[in-house]
Amino acid sequence: MEKVRDLVREGKRVAKEDPRRVVHSFKVGLVLSLVSSFYYYQPLYDSFGVNAMWAVMTVVVVFEFSVGATLGKGLNRVAATLFAGALGIGAHHLASLSGSTGEPILLAIFVFIQAALSTFVRFFPRVKARYDYSLLIFILTFALISVSGFREEQVLVLTHKRISTVIIGGLSCVLISIFVCPVWAGQDLHSLLASNVEKLSFFLLEFGDKYCETVKDGDTKEVDKRKNDFDNYKSVLNSKSNEESLANFAKWEPGHGQFRFRHPWKQYLSIGGLIRQCAYRIDALNSYLNADIQVSIDIRKKLEEPFRRMSFESGKAMKEMSVSLTKMIKPSSSDLHVRNAQSACKSLTSLLHSGILKEVESQELISLLTAISLLIDIINLTENILESLHELASAARFKDKTESPIFAEKPNSKSIVCGWATKGQDDHVVTIVNDDCCNGNTSEKGNRSNKVLIHEKHEDCVHEKHEDDDAHVHSSCDSCGHTSLRVIVECR
Amino acid sequence: MEKVRDLVREGKRVAKEDPRRVVHSFKVGLVLSLVSSFYYYQPLYDSFGVNAMWAVMTVVVVFEFSVGATLGKGLNRVAATLFAGALGIGAHHLASLSGSTGEPILLAIFVFIQAALSTFVRFFPRVKARYDYSLLIFILTFALISVSGFREEQVLVLTHKRISTVIIGGLSCVLISIFVCPVWAGQDLHSLLASNVEKLSFFLLEFGDKYCETVKDGDTKEVDKRKNDFDNYKSVLNSKSNEESLANFAKWEPGHGQFRFRHPWKQYLSIGGLIRQCAYRIDALNSYLNADIQVSIDIRKKLEEPFRRMSFESGKAMKEMSVSLTKMIKPSSSDLHVRNAQSACKSLTSLLHSGILKEVESQELISLLTAISLLIDIINLTENILESLHELASAARFKDKTESPIFAEKPNSKSIVCGWATKGQDDHVVTIVNDDCCNGNTSEKGNRSNKVLIHEKHEDCVHEKHEDDDAHVHSSCDSCGHTSLRVIVECR
Repeated sequence: MEKVRDLVREGKRVAKEDPRRVVHSFKVGLVLSLVSSFYYYQPLYDSFGVNAMWAVMTVVVVFEFSVGATLGKGLNRVAATLFAGALGIGAHHLASLSGSTGEPILLAIFVFIQAALSTFVRFFPRVKARYDYSLLIFILTFALISVSGFREEQVLVLTHKRISTVIIGGLSCVLISIFVCPVWAGQDLHSLLASNVEKLSFFLLEFGDKYCETVKDGDTKEVDKRKNDFDNYKSVLNSKSNEESLANFAKWEPGHGQFRFRHPWKQYLSIGGLIRQCAYRIDALNSYLNADIQVSIDIRKKLEEPFRRMSFESGKAMKEMSVSLTKMIKPSSSDLHVRNAQSACKSLTSLLHSGILKEVESQELISLLTAISLLIDIINLTENILESLHELASAARFKDKTESPIFAEKPNSKSIVCGWATKGQDDHVVTIVNDDCCNGNTSEKGNRSNKVLIHEKHEDCVHEKHEDDDAHVHSSCDSCGHTSLRVIVECR
Repeated sequence: MEKVRDLVREGKRVAKEDPRRVVHSFKVGLVLSLVSSFYYYQPLYDSFGVNAMWAVMTVVVVFEFSVGATLGKGLNRVAATLFAGALGIGAHHLASLSGSTGEPILLAIFVFIQAALSTFVRFFPRVKARYDYSLLIFILTFALISVSGFREEQVLVLTHKRISTVIIGGLSCVLISIFVCPVWAGQDLHSLLASNVEKLSFFLLEFGDKYCETVKDGDTKEVDKRKNDFDNYKSVLNSKSNEESLANFAKWEPGHGQFRFRHPWKQYLSIGGLIRQCAYRIDALNSYLNADIQVSIDIRKKLEEPFRRMSFESGKAMKEMSVSLTKMIKPSSSDLHVRNAQSACKSLTSLLHSGILKEVESQELISLLTAISLLIDIINLTENILESLHELASAARFKDKTESPIFAEKPNSKSIVCGWATKGQDDHVVTIVNDDCCNGNTSEKGNRSNKVLIHEKHEDCVHEKHEDDDAHVHSSCDSCGHTSLRVIVECR
């Protein structure tokens, strides 16, 4: 009883984790009962007979979770069956020329050579990655066709029936998988990448605070608990094989949603690699959160401001990248955050230059400087990821943020709008005002820009300014010199 | 033409990389032509008819590279066929009770429910890991048997034939894979782990020298080239999925060679995880070899001795672990090397305490201390790996090194032997002498011990000493206090 209950609980968990799994199960059941009508319906049975079983087999074997995997397997199976069928007929014909004693010997030799050769070719890395299943079916069909030919006179009819049932089975799988609640491997890969970046961003956004807090509150249990909350990044460490198989499937998929047929899936793998590199550093950084040797509060206090900012700004850059991936818009403000993180780096190193480390114990020093150095590494990797993402964005034609202002609810003149200053509109005058509409998580609402900016905690200051062309240079407010800034655009 | 030549070259490379692949290909060809004799040989054909194709299919699908994978798939397939066959007959019987109109409808419903349920269960992580293939065959056989029953009267005979051909096909695969040049997944996993440890050891043995040399010779190109030589560790970073699948296969394998049936394969995965953790740190460390910011020669010179020793000794510990894994003997001297590395750590930190870092630039300081801290991390992880390896060694009953003295070429009394002081022999008197036979890569020759030891660069000193029981405590020479020691045993 207990076991059954466990099983049901596990089933609920599995279904909840991804409800598409339930749908997929129903789809398989549906296609299978559909295809088994070959047996029940007399006219169909008359033309195919027992060969109907190939349709059933094809469905069971070919129908995979994602469209790409199903298409890949289906096409592989059909192509391999066609090719092996033709070759099998040839082999049968050749063998039958040698008389009744020679025929089985010759057939056995053909089967041996073909099976050994194909099995060997399956070890080729490039073949293994994409055509492993083709070769399996190739070996199988060749053996079946050439050998059955020995018994059955009408080998052509047999081959024809096998091929057509395989095609029917494969086609029904492909059609159902595409048109009934499709699961796109490409979409999954895209989401996986976005969620991986988000996981890292979550760590980084929290890390700066936690690193300083661990000393503040002495309750280690509480700290431990919170630490577990952001251990999510660990799943990123081993995402490689998953990403690779998804990319492999995605290559088979036709255009869908925002993805064209030749979407640059390869670029996803290289971004994924960089993300993993970053995750390795984060894993190392994480070990400093509750290391045995803790840096004294004094020193942390002195370094707190730039240290937090480094972690927070790189986290924000990651967060924006994840949003940009999810929404398929070009990442715009991430550049700013990366630059902010880098400028925080500089203030930190100049702080260190000022000689505040003179009295620090050497073991503390090691621990502290390692954390700093890992953070610097992470910021550099963030920049690399961003670069790669820019490449992806242009290769995959991500939308420009400026094309669709998100907050332009009041586009009439003189009204205040949070939005994006569009380059083309020359008569824009941009005013920086005390903003009260953009104080949420700005990256998700998309109401940040690199153009004209106001410091976050600087709400009283109101400056007026003309938008200029090379707005990317602005990493600080012209009037007050603050570096972390927010934008409101007033259309006039 | 060029393409064909490329293909042949690729084939040669694949075959050279692992010659067992060629053997495997021949084995598949052999079994397949053997099984196809079902068609040629009249008495066999009389009893099985077209059902012989199931034997062919089973061979093509079940015969995998390693014994474990073949056994796993074969057993899965046979068990699933048996179970689904029985259930299919039941379903057919139940459906046939409802008359000729109700039968196809009921059958379709059965197939639908069974396929949907089984497909859903395949998503359970534990099922997916081990029984995915079983369920595939279960769905297939159930559908085929229950639906064919609609047309064929003798459903029992059909089922019986299918099951027996599947068993024959599966059995011939299993027998050939076990008795003709077997490829054991367990052995492969074991070797993979040993080679992964060795890759890390290679990095660590070289790293200390390289870190100091990069400054000494200015020729960056040369340094770059040598750097590539020891980038081997990178393959360790993504070995997880490979290790997991090998461990999965290994569980199916019977005892072979030095591995019993219930060999602790799980422990391999946990050691593998630690090794990967270590590899992540090494990856981070590697980036400091040719970083933009280089630590000045002065500072490096001052820290060189303990720094090199940390890297070298942890590398040696790894190397010995790899040898111990390969030879399946208990790791003995690794403990000593880990302790040496730890004592080097202590001398390094006390050097840092002495205040030699006062004048160092902050960016240099970050770079230097991070490298040191990563190295400390690696030493700690080395200790963890060693602990895990000790657990494995006792769970898998690795041999004791003392049982098989490797260098006891002259076991007669009064002669000098490099070897292992055996605990049982009470009349041993151990003399430390100037050794000239043990100056190669000692770990591979197995001529190191924790027992009585002499410092490596201390060849003039000759002490006489009785072996004592708790020799593991010796981390330094009693007479001169040196810590890195070498042993020669003189039997009297």
